[in-house]
Amino acid sequence: MRIGIDLGGMTIKAGLVTEDGKILHKDAVPTEAQRHYTEILADMAKLAIKVCEDAGYRMDEITSVGIGSPGSCDAKNGVLVYANNINFHNVPVRTEIQKYINKPVYLENDANVAAYAEYRLGGKEMECFIAVTLGTGVGGGIIMNGKIFSGHNGAGGELGHMVIKKDGKPCSCGRKGCWEAYASATALIAQTKNAILDHKESVMNDIIGGDIDKVDGKTAFDAAKQGDEAAIEVVKKYTEYVGVGIANLINIFQPEKIVIGGGISNQGNYLLNLIKEYCTFEVYSGAKIGGIDIEIAQLGNDAGIIGAALLNE
Amino acid sequence: MRIGIDLGGMTIKAGLVTEDGKILHKDAVPTEAQRHYTEILADMAKLAIKVCEDAGYRMDEITSVGIGSPGSCDAKNGVLVYANNINFHNVPVRTEIQKYINKPVYLENDANVAAYAEYRLGGKEMECFIAVTLGTGVGGGIIMNGKIFSGHNGAGGELGHMVIKKDGKPCSCGRKGCWEAYASATALIAQTKNAILDHKESVMNDIIGGDIDKVDGKTAFDAAKQGDEAAIEVVKKYTEYVGVGIANLINIFQPEKIVIGGGISNQGNYLLNLIKEYCTFEVYSGAKIGGIDIEIAQLGNDAGIIGAALLNE
Repeated sequence: MRIGIDLGGMTIKAGLVTEDGKILHKDAVPTEAQRHYTEILADMAKLAIKVCEDAGYRMDEITSVGIGSPGSCDAKNGVLVYANNINFHNVPVRTEIQKYINKPVYLENDANVAAYAEYRLGGKEMECFIAVTLGTGVGGGIIMNGKIFSGHNGAGGELGHMVIKKDGKPCSCGRKGCWEAYASATALIAQTKNAILDHKESVMNDIIGGDIDKVDGKTAFDAAKQGDEAAIEVVKKYTEYVGVGIANLINIFQPEKIVIGGGISNQGNYLLNLIKEYCTFEVYSGAKIGGIDIEIAQLGNDAGIIGAALLNE
Repeated sequence: MRIGIDLGGMTIKAGLVTEDGKILHKDAVPTEAQRHYTEILADMAKLAIKVCEDAGYRMDEITSVGIGSPGSCDAKNGVLVYANNINFHNVPVRTEIQKYINKPVYLENDANVAAYAEYRLGGKEMECFIAVTLGTGVGGGIIMNGKIFSGHNGAGGELGHMVIKKDGKPCSCGRKGCWEAYASATALIAQTKNAILDHKESVMNDIIGGDIDKVDGKTAFDAAKQGDEAAIEVVKKYTEYVGVGIANLINIFQPEKIVIGGGISNQGNYLLNLIKEYCTFEVYSGAKIGGIDIEIAQLGNDAGIIGAALLNE
């Protein structure tokens, strides 16, 4: 039995997870991210212990504790090097957690951890597997030969910060034209709002009851499925933005599989088919997209807990 | 002792190479690429045998024959899946060569082979090493844990066909806005010609003696070093195009080292410093470019022969 902890900017989630990646019990507490790291990490350890006890297990039945965290992690030393949304700099996460729980503690970036969960539960060994998350930002995780790949400093796999449009839209990272600035849910919402302002007659306007602040990542998809032309155009352009990055990743990695997660992935096959159609014409000649599985991620919000729990040496 | 063969669209080169990557003797014959593959492969085998004999070695002193080829290779089966400039489709290269030389025959994409040579002669083990070639196109090779990484179908590592400017300049691959369409020597030459047409007063015009067909990959660099403003602008923009792709690769891979080869890399530190300067502001926050070595490739045109010779299981 293992414990997985998903540290987020708003919420700390922890779960008791079986060796084959099933969550038996989970719980959550607020992060209150403005606090000192020792307090946050103490709450993480306490939540882990509580989850174990509430499920009727003893701590000596626990093999390891894994943590998925935002930012750049030094996995080897269990140190969170840098995360901007929880203001951690060179925080010795492993050492702190081990003050409360005397077990092996593993730490990895949250997008990498989610990718690892999707890979492990896919149940098939692959040389290269990539997970892309279309959420507030665009996250990425690369699994090479069954191991998380994050480069020499743990900061690799930042797929969302690949520029796809040089001198394009400013990105939160400081670059201009990042994939994230076009393919995140945040970007889709902005694209949807612009289209509504330009097309007052659009069904999108009815869906949001005329309140522009009610636009979300579903608005354009819902209206497009009703045949609304302005919405169809938003969805077409958005999926091209997603697709151009996916095609880049294919030309670079030719992975066995790419899974797409995050809020936008709730659009399922509707989204997937548009992306595949676009990529078919964007993948380097001579190679074929046919050999690559592009799928929707399966684990949703639980991927963080499950992937963290499954972390090992 | 090993033999390395570099199959090009114009020339077949072969070399006798020591176990530690030194070329003892090399020779070349024209490819005459319009011929049937059996003829071309027969010439490759004959050249390999000749190189060995001319250097005073017997074939039974040869451990293996390695081949670097354009296009997508199925390295496992020794099959050239597809190459557009020599019109090979599913050619059984290993089997054909072994009709003449009864040795292990290894086959890999030429950009991957060149990257492998640079990696091996770097003499240091790394988790991730990337070579980028700024030539007629933009080539790429990824070495992971000492092995060539080329994806599930051998077609990976096509770094030049990463879109950096969606809906931008058409690329030979069919996409629009590929890195290659902006950062290749071919692209630089087009950028230089445009600047000369716009700036008749430029030193670049003197360098080419007013003959626009004499523009090459050095023209803008030579004039920029003389302080010519139009040329400085060309070089600045070109190195930004190179840099945006390098920064993408850093955000994705965080490799230990990136080497830059190809004709443009003859500009050495002048080029390197401009690229580094640009990348410093383009790399994902929290990570630092300081930990990554960005260097000029060392082996020049010999990388193909050396890398091919060093190929192994």
